Amino acid sequence: MRDIVLNPPVDAPEAQGSDTGARPLNRRQVAKQRTRGKVIEAARNLFAQRGYDAATIRDIAREAGMSTGAVFANFQDKSELFDTVLAEDLARLAEALTRGIKTGTDLKSRLLGGFVAGYEATLDQLPLVQAVVARAWHQPLQDARKGRELIAPVIEGLESLVADAIKAGELKPTTDAALVTELVWVAYLSNYRRAAYDSWTIDTLKSHLEQQIDIILSGQRAR
Amino acid sequence: MRDIVLNPPVDAPEAQGSDTGARPLNRRQVAKQRTRGKVIEAARNLFAQRGYDAATIRDIAREAGMSTGAVFANFQDKSELFDTVLAEDLARLAEALTRGIKTGTDLKSRLLGGFVAGYEATLDQLPLVQAVVARAWHQPLQDARKGRELIAPVIEGLESLVADAIKAGELKPTTDAALVTELVWVAYLSNYRRAAYDSWTIDTLKSHLEQQIDIILSGQRAR
Repeated sequence: MRDIVLNPPVDAPEAQGSDTGARPLNRRQVAKQRTRGKVIEAARNLFAQRGYDAATIRDIAREAGMSTGAVFANFQDKSELFDTVLAEDLARLAEALTRGIKTGTDLKSRLLGGFVAGYEATLDQLPLVQAVVARAWHQPLQDARKGRELIAPVIEGLESLVADAIKAGELKPTTDAALVTELVWVAYLSNYRRAAYDSWTIDTLKSHLEQQIDIILSGQRAR
Repeated sequence: MRDIVLNPPVDAPEAQGSDTGARPLNRRQVAKQRTRGKVIEAARNLFAQRGYDAATIRDIAREAGMSTGAVFANFQDKSELFDTVLAEDLARLAEALTRGIKTGTDLKSRLLGGFVAGYEATLDQLPLVQAVVARAWHQPLQDARKGRELIAPVIEGLESLVADAIKAGELKPTTDAALVTELVWVAYLSNYRRAAYDSWTIDTLKSHLEQQIDIILSGQRAR
């Protein structure tokens, strides 16, 4: 499951009181990172509230308490700002998925453990998840490609779980790992809409996803 | 599969050269319907091009060659206009699904026939499908409820196919028809993204959806 761990995004706001051994930043660098962090935070809030299209750079700057010039000094355009927010959130999701997967269990438990940890790590940012999925559906091709690159390690990590289960003889050797992973991922994602519009809790999400995974895996199990 | 047939939307532009036996419209009514039709067409184009949020009533009016006042004389707000476009397109989709389902075949063939006809009927309006799904993910609760009401007959029609296959002994009696329908629907929808960003053709969509349906149904088949 190592594949799933994304590197911390380069654009992360400065680590608070970190002692990671990285070279200490000088005052100017610290100020610059703080500015970036403020812009990212403001962008995150506005993307979540209004969606990508309706959140303008002007509004984001105002929310961050700075000029649009200061925003553009840090980010080329709105799309780059969105990708930075997305990269941070995917890193958080990937970390949660990895943490949630219990080794030594069957595939269903591993997937479910990972995904439930994923829901737990993101449900307090539900409007942002909604904005991200909405954006994934209606964006220029070039942006779609960038988004796909960002999500790829998460999908590959999940697919390696399925591939491992095939190798271990838990699933049939004829199972298409990519297709099974895709179906499980699509089910996982689709449930966020129920969380948003039917107020589904973690427990509801978990029980529903468990049934979905059961259906998807039931024909693939080696008996 | 009767459930799936939506009534033609009340707001449809006037039937051209129709002889449906409806009472003929007087000149004023014809003019009013023509105006509505123009607004809907302009809205459809702008929603597809820009997405819901970025398409303003002002732009829609300009595209239709009329004043914003004329738009508001026909539609209360952008959300009502969007629902009208959506209702028309869902009626088209439902009609295609119904037409594509061949009776007398197994569930997989019926579902696949319906869905492929669905792709065929909508693929020339792919950007609008993308805008609709994006909107489904990021909209106020009240709008989400309306959207769900519009889509419900389509989902119910599909679910009745699955329920019929359970009754006919093709699927296990323990099969959860709603859950199977949901998974197939979510897979069907998700493939539109591949059509949009990977230029998938009808043939690619068909072959991929067939594999997805195989996985979803394989554990549910009564042997």
